[in-house]
Amino acid sequence: MRIKQESNSEKVASIGERNLIFHLSKIFKPSKPSSFLGEEFKVLKGAGSDDCAVLELDEEICLVATTDMLHRTTDFPEGMTPWQMGWMAAAVNLSDIASMGAFPIGLLMAIGMPADTEVAFVEELAKGMQACAEFCETSVLGGDIDTHEELTITGTALGKAKKSELLFRCGAKPGELVCVTGATGSAGAALDALLKQKKASKKLLKSLLEPVPRIKEARKLAARGLVSSMMDTSDGLALSLHELAKASQVGFSIQEAALPVEAEVLNFASDPEELLNLSLYTGGDFELLFTIKPENLQKVQNICKVSVIGKTIVKEEGILLKRSKGKRVQIAKKGYLQFEPPET
Amino acid sequence: MRIKQESNSEKVASIGERNLIFHLSKIFKPSKPSSFLGEEFKVLKGAGSDDCAVLELDEEICLVATTDMLHRTTDFPEGMTPWQMGWMAAAVNLSDIASMGAFPIGLLMAIGMPADTEVAFVEELAKGMQACAEFCETSVLGGDIDTHEELTITGTALGKAKKSELLFRCGAKPGELVCVTGATGSAGAALDALLKQKKASKKLLKSLLEPVPRIKEARKLAARGLVSSMMDTSDGLALSLHELAKASQVGFSIQEAALPVEAEVLNFASDPEELLNLSLYTGGDFELLFTIKPENLQKVQNICKVSVIGKTIVKEEGILLKRSKGKRVQIAKKGYLQFEPPET
Repeated sequence: MRIKQESNSEKVASIGERNLIFHLSKIFKPSKPSSFLGEEFKVLKGAGSDDCAVLELDEEICLVATTDMLHRTTDFPEGMTPWQMGWMAAAVNLSDIASMGAFPIGLLMAIGMPADTEVAFVEELAKGMQACAEFCETSVLGGDIDTHEELTITGTALGKAKKSELLFRCGAKPGELVCVTGATGSAGAALDALLKQKKASKKLLKSLLEPVPRIKEARKLAARGLVSSMMDTSDGLALSLHELAKASQVGFSIQEAALPVEAEVLNFASDPEELLNLSLYTGGDFELLFTIKPENLQKVQNICKVSVIGKTIVKEEGILLKRSKGKRVQIAKKGYLQFEPPET
Repeated sequence: MRIKQESNSEKVASIGERNLIFHLSKIFKPSKPSSFLGEEFKVLKGAGSDDCAVLELDEEICLVATTDMLHRTTDFPEGMTPWQMGWMAAAVNLSDIASMGAFPIGLLMAIGMPADTEVAFVEELAKGMQACAEFCETSVLGGDIDTHEELTITGTALGKAKKSELLFRCGAKPGELVCVTGATGSAGAALDALLKQKKASKKLLKSLLEPVPRIKEARKLAARGLVSSMMDTSDGLALSLHELAKASQVGFSIQEAALPVEAEVLNFASDPEELLNLSLYTGGDFELLFTIKPENLQKVQNICKVSVIGKTIVKEEGILLKRSKGKRVQIAKKGYLQFEPPET
């Protein structure tokens, strides 16, 4: 790499994923608003600021867009079928569209693969992508194929939302309830089972291998205006709490006893610390983490199955976990990150 | 790869890129038109059918979207700076937006790289992307970073166009003129110079390493309604002629003497066959190939520098080249393809 030695020779692994994104987002500042047919359209959320980029299409409607690169060694566990890889590559992106409360309008899928890949394998990949797209009432609009030593899939999802219904990471206020859909730690437990060749039910494995983007739940919550902030938990609950807290400038008080953990995961963990590690610090659950005003809880429960896991507090108190035995601890900022961040 | 042996065990390399795209596009058929806020929006061009996917946003305006995966060993020649790699990754996608006559509204850039990549290297990549985006009056809206053994960049470009101004590969009729912007074979000659360590001017190298997406020219041509079909020449002129012919159901009669070749490339080639190979069968020129009615030529020439390289003829006559010595030959369907197609 032809970089002059006097310049910044630090390695990306040593500054961490979040810092690198922050670095790059300063370079990607839009110079001026674009205009088309006399109409200016503003970038409402640019690089690095939320689950999706958000662009005004007109006064009422916004386009949301997100992209995610997956590849065989780190994103597709041993034993995953090509159909499931395709599903996963679509699902990670559609989950980001869900996080914004948006409605998906299409996917683009770029696939890099070795030249000796079997056609049947690629067909299965494509069928998995198509199945996930159909499940979310959208379609694969296009893509790219490329020769690549390692199987690599980059998906891009596009969505639309009314500007007034968009959900962001910012917006939570102290005194609100913190909710999460589905269960937490299931995908992490399933991955552990695969890696250590432990027994796991089909249902548990499916939560890792065929995660369901919460498009329908998110759309309903967004349309009713019930949510003050939202994101998905794909990098783990702890990391999502930290992101939401940072964007909203609040703290959280989470109850360990309220974390929605499947019975199988409870049995799976050998002690309470392992269980906590699974439910807070492992990624792969594509659930929605969001905050609501207490008076909206009933309406939210009428829309989808949620667990109230705690409440928002002032920023200065940090992100606390009330352990089942009463002790309060800080929730660490760790989870699934591409480059491990330095300790803070 | 866990594919049952009784299923299709043919390898992707043996069926070729275009066939594979055709295969996949059958899987990616949209099941039904989506609707949002009571409004149905149709996919006008789906997977595999043009340079971009096209989606109706409303009755008048369409969204166009395209994605392209590049990686170090096959897409970034030795000696290319990280800034140029970033520029290139943006340019390939913006060139596809240009091909549709659309106006770019944003880019998403996913970067996969080894964990020991220097931060300065990634910053240069990002600056190159940003420079190309700014040149095309758009911006990088977001992206993804990922650890990857080999540097891999997947860009996605989004654009907008009036439905009435969109340009497609289909639309050419017999009796029209075939035009190309800029020069042909320059990028191919520059690549040859790099690979064989021959001398080449900075200008020639730049045509390969910093290709210019023809957004401005394409927008003007589209807005005036002067073009009947268009695509870019990034996979080589011959392959683009074949694609345009197939989509428009026409043939072409191209004049060898009319191919716009830079003086340096003329000197570079050792004989007429090598020159023809460079100008027809090498990729990397990001020029516009398009067809126009003869009476529009003057208006087109007032907009941009173009060369008329031949005319459209009936499909049955094929894609002919009138050699400088008078002989007529068929132009082969070959150029830059990820997987070599079988001989046809």
